[in-house]
Amino acid sequence: MTEIAQIHMLSANLDENYKKIRKCVKDAQKKSVKTLIFPAFSLTGYPIADELKSPEFIKQCWSYVERLLKYTENLAVVLDIPFLEKNQLVHRLLWLENRKIKAFSDNSCGWNDMGLSFERYFKTSKQFQSPKSFKFGLAFASELEKKLEKSSEFEKWIVLDAWSFDYKTINFRINYFCDLAKKYHVEIFLANAVGGQVSLILSGGSMHISSEGKILKQHSYFSESFLSSKTVKVPKSEIEWIYEALVCGIREYFNDRGLKQAVLGLSGGIDSAVVLPLVVEALGRKNVLGILLPSPYSTKHSIVDAIKSADNLGVDYHIIPIEQAFQTMRQTLLPVFGKRPFDLAEENLQARIRGMILMGISNKFGHVLLNTSNKSEIAVGYGTLYGDLCGGLAVLGDLYKFQVYELANFINRKREIIPQNSINKIPSAELRPNQKDSDSLPEYDVLDAVLQLHLDHNFSTSQIIEKGFDAEVVKKILKLIRNSAYKRQQTAPQLRISNSAFNIDRITVF
Amino acid sequence: MTEIAQIHMLSANLDENYKKIRKCVKDAQKKSVKTLIFPAFSLTGYPIADELKSPEFIKQCWSYVERLLKYTENLAVVLDIPFLEKNQLVHRLLWLENRKIKAFSDNSCGWNDMGLSFERYFKTSKQFQSPKSFKFGLAFASELEKKLEKSSEFEKWIVLDAWSFDYKTINFRINYFCDLAKKYHVEIFLANAVGGQVSLILSGGSMHISSEGKILKQHSYFSESFLSSKTVKVPKSEIEWIYEALVCGIREYFNDRGLKQAVLGLSGGIDSAVVLPLVVEALGRKNVLGILLPSPYSTKHSIVDAIKSADNLGVDYHIIPIEQAFQTMRQTLLPVFGKRPFDLAEENLQARIRGMILMGISNKFGHVLLNTSNKSEIAVGYGTLYGDLCGGLAVLGDLYKFQVYELANFINRKREIIPQNSINKIPSAELRPNQKDSDSLPEYDVLDAVLQLHLDHNFSTSQIIEKGFDAEVVKKILKLIRNSAYKRQQTAPQLRISNSAFNIDRITVF
Repeated sequence: MTEIAQIHMLSANLDENYKKIRKCVKDAQKKSVKTLIFPAFSLTGYPIADELKSPEFIKQCWSYVERLLKYTENLAVVLDIPFLEKNQLVHRLLWLENRKIKAFSDNSCGWNDMGLSFERYFKTSKQFQSPKSFKFGLAFASELEKKLEKSSEFEKWIVLDAWSFDYKTINFRINYFCDLAKKYHVEIFLANAVGGQVSLILSGGSMHISSEGKILKQHSYFSESFLSSKTVKVPKSEIEWIYEALVCGIREYFNDRGLKQAVLGLSGGIDSAVVLPLVVEALGRKNVLGILLPSPYSTKHSIVDAIKSADNLGVDYHIIPIEQAFQTMRQTLLPVFGKRPFDLAEENLQARIRGMILMGISNKFGHVLLNTSNKSEIAVGYGTLYGDLCGGLAVLGDLYKFQVYELANFINRKREIIPQNSINKIPSAELRPNQKDSDSLPEYDVLDAVLQLHLDHNFSTSQIIEKGFDAEVVKKILKLIRNSAYKRQQTAPQLRISNSAFNIDRITVF
Repeated sequence: MTEIAQIHMLSANLDENYKKIRKCVKDAQKKSVKTLIFPAFSLTGYPIADELKSPEFIKQCWSYVERLLKYTENLAVVLDIPFLEKNQLVHRLLWLENRKIKAFSDNSCGWNDMGLSFERYFKTSKQFQSPKSFKFGLAFASELEKKLEKSSEFEKWIVLDAWSFDYKTINFRINYFCDLAKKYHVEIFLANAVGGQVSLILSGGSMHISSEGKILKQHSYFSESFLSSKTVKVPKSEIEWIYEALVCGIREYFNDRGLKQAVLGLSGGIDSAVVLPLVVEALGRKNVLGILLPSPYSTKHSIVDAIKSADNLGVDYHIIPIEQAFQTMRQTLLPVFGKRPFDLAEENLQARIRGMILMGISNKFGHVLLNTSNKSEIAVGYGTLYGDLCGGLAVLGDLYKFQVYELANFINRKREIIPQNSINKIPSAELRPNQKDSDSLPEYDVLDAVLQLHLDHNFSTSQIIEKGFDAEVVKKILKLIRNSAYKRQQTAPQLRISNSAFNIDRITVF
């Protein structure tokens, strides 16, 4: 019996990861498993970044493999490690069995550590060492197709991956492996890591695919799964995939750090109203604290809607008006500002006072501040640095505004959790009287359409204009993207759910 | 006559870069130059990051080369561009002459875009196309040695680079190229880019080296130089290199953005006292505004020293006490904080009020806020996120505390510019009564020694302990580094002067 241990590993925490691997091995032996497969980077965690530059770390990886070897009596264990070979860092899959390394894959360096190419660490070794007299092919997911093209000697393939979820690729990916199995008439055991690491969400969903391309057995998405055989719940729509991924991303961010509690600002607007049920789902309502921070420019419905969003979920909240602090700050700055008119500086002061209050509560009680900015705002810099852009994790940071609405409707599909008024009202930062987002930005439907063409499809200014969008609007949006790069460098890290996430897939340096 | 146009280019601003190239070409023709060499990435700017993913951008690069070709009557122009070849992005040096591409280098992908491997963009093409019947070898700096090993057909080499300065490598680098010239008995024209791009400081210092390994002609460091023949000022010590690099980094950050004015907080401590003369050197004293932000915990000497540092340089300053704002913030948070004791939350409040005031002035007047944190603090997270970690550029962010002192003494070598008391006093954040940095951190001499071993030399915990450092102290420091990664992700970008700069050379993901 061949099994996959779809475990969640901690980045660079060899000790904890080894304990988990050891436990799975013990359990597998009890249940008479013959071959136990671990997803890519199970020992090291993923991503590991510059730990790979430490020779000591690499040595330690090897020592853990030596320890593990002792427990491979009558059990084959497949996992990967980085190690030094002729002073070069290489990356191989190992097949451990009966206290020996029975087989290993040729060196691979096809990994892309999300923004960091693995070329940063691994050298391509030229020698090709394929396992001999051995019935399994061994490959990392990124190189499987190439290996299948070259070799027809194996009928079964063990494939390791640590795939970072994005909603655009997930279905393609499932079909891709099934198609490969069918095309080359091979059985595939695809072990994929699960969990999260700040921005990255690893999807799990490991599979055993028949040589006819049928999924024989599947592991759960977004949760650990070991020797599992129960039926797996597969999300049915794009927005359900996104929902499940975000909940996983939040949960693992807290789990990995031994943290439990979150705080967030509730403005009555759509963004914070959507973050709240996600956090409640991930952490439980008792671990979430909402803070209402009304200013003189807050409308009455903002407070009503914010309270309703907390009450609908049974979440505790405080109301902390910022007017007094705002007046004191203006007073404090009066000797320098003089009689200059109210402008962006005063708007930002309010956003920063809110940020300061939320961070104060975070520091005092140990709650993690969750950020509620969306990708449309972050793209064009419509947010205040050190104000509404602060926090430990930007839950919606990779969702366009239209996706935030879709998510709201998905969450409300059975009953009103997010106040309908938060969904219906016209978006506003409420930092000056009667402000609307559309005073500063194009309407969100235009903004989102242009952003998608540019960020998701690499369309240039002229190509977008050719699609029929107003030239001035397009130029303005692309200029805003460029000119707000400095803000994105200091914004809370965003949970990545697409293949055009800022700071990972889209790197701008201006 | 062969000449180097050591120009500063703007990242991804093809239009401006082309104009500059065109102007140099025109001037060269007037002065009967035969061959004009541009540093690497002169057309595209460097770094360019994800612009390289836009096919439209790549096409535009090519169209500028076509325009430039028209002006190559009786003049050879050497520069590099990225372009598409069989749908793969490649990167070549071109030799343009008499309206034709007379020669080009084989495809190279040895570039490392500072943290981003160029493998992210460029595919290695397998065909090797060396220029024929042609007396110059063409290479990027990173591949020169390999090419020299392989080929002995050229006596002269044109070498392009866009080398990001670090004080540890600069002298090695100069000797390296001289040694190569001598060893292979070839003449080298090394054209290196100059200027800055946020964190990166490109050093300039282009050279013409004889086949005996002697520097025949040198271009200036840290400033543009075209057809220059005057004597070049070469810094004489590590700290002088660092000083010149930092001034260049500040100056170019402002120049590139069309900005002129800076604001910074003056605490009377060593860090801000060292940043001030650097900024004055880069921008002129009239473009710098100092802000003193005393709190109830500020000592009297802090204010005296801060005023003195401004007066010594003739810089304007304002004094804005933060006590009122601090009391109001505590009052505002009282309903949530209750009677909990004064702790880190209240310390951070003060730092954030200061950040808010400085950003308010930045927003109101358009001054860029300069950050004064040093590498020792940033490494261990001894700073307040959205407080003293905010700003557009962290001037000392890649200098250990001991280097800040060295720089202070260097700046004061002729007269007291930095108040001696700022240099002599015991470092303190002054956020609670009688606070010293050493209450929370090891003494800076121990901290800096451990940080250097770990960050500069990749020493692990046990290796550092073996060197004789206290085990608990070492463990604490390395744990602090790891646990403060989340702060570094949101800290102002740091001017890079070493080869262990955070977020560029040292990437941690926890």
